[in-house]
Amino acid sequence: MTKCEPCELCSTSGDVIIQSAEWRVILVDDAHYPGFCRVIWTAHVQEMSDLSVSERTMLMNVVWQVELAIREVMRPHKINLASFGNMVPHLHWHVIPRFTDDMHFPNPIWGQVERSVNPGIQQRQLLIPALRSAIVHRLTED
Amino acid sequence: MTKCEPCELCSTSGDVIIQSAEWRVILVDDAHYPGFCRVIWTAHVQEMSDLSVSERTMLMNVVWQVELAIREVMRPHKINLASFGNMVPHLHWHVIPRFTDDMHFPNPIWGQVERSVNPGIQQRQLLIPALRSAIVHRLTED
Repeated sequence: MTKCEPCELCSTSGDVIIQSAEWRVILVDDAHYPGFCRVIWTAHVQEMSDLSVSERTMLMNVVWQVELAIREVMRPHKINLASFGNMVPHLHWHVIPRFTDDMHFPNPIWGQVERSVNPGIQQRQLLIPALRSAIVHRLTED
Repeated sequence: MTKCEPCELCSTSGDVIIQSAEWRVILVDDAHYPGFCRVIWTAHVQEMSDLSVSERTMLMNVVWQVELAIREVMRPHKINLASFGNMVPHLHWHVIPRFTDDMHFPNPIWGQVERSVNPGIQQRQLLIPALRSAIVHRLTED
């Protein structure tokens, strides 16, 4: 594995929910999006197509399990998935529960703000412990 | 397959590069992003985790082949992948070649505009026929 200075995703920082040698799942610190998770590939790899087929399958399986845990616990209106890496070209997936009352809905969370009041947010914060457990459970079941 | 009125992705509109019964790849009509492709699942399904494991694998394999074709032909700085569906909750993937001189770089294309001049865009337009061929080739090889 090539370590890149100063790639922030090569460090193990962040609120780790569960990790293996190949990947880690972190809870993103975003007050507007409780339950927003990031799945980070450990090795410094830029694109999905730089992974082997089995590595790709492994990484995406983690993404699907996180998606399933979020759906089960948080019942979002929609799941948003994205892998950009324009700033930090180190493979990572954003898995975001979206609600019709969230700050940017129906835009991507990187798009235009639609509202500032977010009535459901406090109730969603309360689901975080259950979400952590559900993610750990799904990813230790395999 | 449930057809939804008025889901625009249940129709077969768009500039189709290649399609099968289960999916289609279209070239997105976005003057700022030549080579921007969309992979659309034919059935009206909302989330990746609503697909079976084999369907998920099939859909993602199309995404990876489109990514590989874009990388091969267009040599982008980065590939961006996203599945939102907030407006149209019908599974589709955006596969976007990103360049450091494009309109939003390093932001997602749904984010803040960073520049209006896009010097490389004309040259990228010229690569579209080769990109179409590369995608067709990769997805008929399997």
